Amino acid sequence: MDIRENMEKKYHEALSTYLKDQNEQALYQGQKISRLHIKYNISPEEIISMHKNNLMELYPELPGKVLDSFDFLLEVMMGYGIAYREHQSLRHQQQ
Amino acid sequence: MDIRENMEKKYHEALSTYLKDQNEQALYQGQKISRLHIKYNISPEEIISMHKNNLMELYPELPGKVLDSFDFLLEVMMGYGIAYREHQSLRHQQQ
Repeated sequence: MDIRENMEKKYHEALSTYLKDQNEQALYQGQKISRLHIKYNISPEEIISMHKNNLMELYPELPGKVLDSFDFLLEVMMGYGIAYREHQSLRHQQQ
Repeated sequence: MDIRENMEKKYHEALSTYLKDQNEQALYQGQKISRLHIKYNISPEEIISMHKNNLMELYPELPGKVLDSFDFLLEVMMGYGIAYREHQSLRHQQQ
């Protein structure tokens, strides 16, 4: 299993746990997942894509438009991903 | 109308247009929205919150769990928002 697959698995597990039992502890897993994903350079748009895939799997009856809305959200997040990578790259140049 | 309300309005308009007519042009609006939101320091987690609010309004019948899933996604995105602001702050210190 490569890093990306491993991160997808972790996201799926943490989201499923949160949806079963929406307590602070389960939500705190979200923070841990976040740090781990950033560490392994998973972009914010990839997170949106993982989230969409998970919802498709968990709720196959979801209206198509709701799933389509994630393509728009992904496009918006892509801008944040680019801005973040630009900052990182500038920082490396300055070091 | 303050900047945040204005950004929420723009997000709502662009998302609604995209969901009516999912063409490249409508998706391109997502890129423009993204640049504008970054310019006005709207965080990625605020975008997730806007997206959730829009879906609640557009699809009032959505299963509660789907809406709950956005709270998890928001928690994950918060980490990206923090990482991005840290980079920005470092950059300002170095200038």
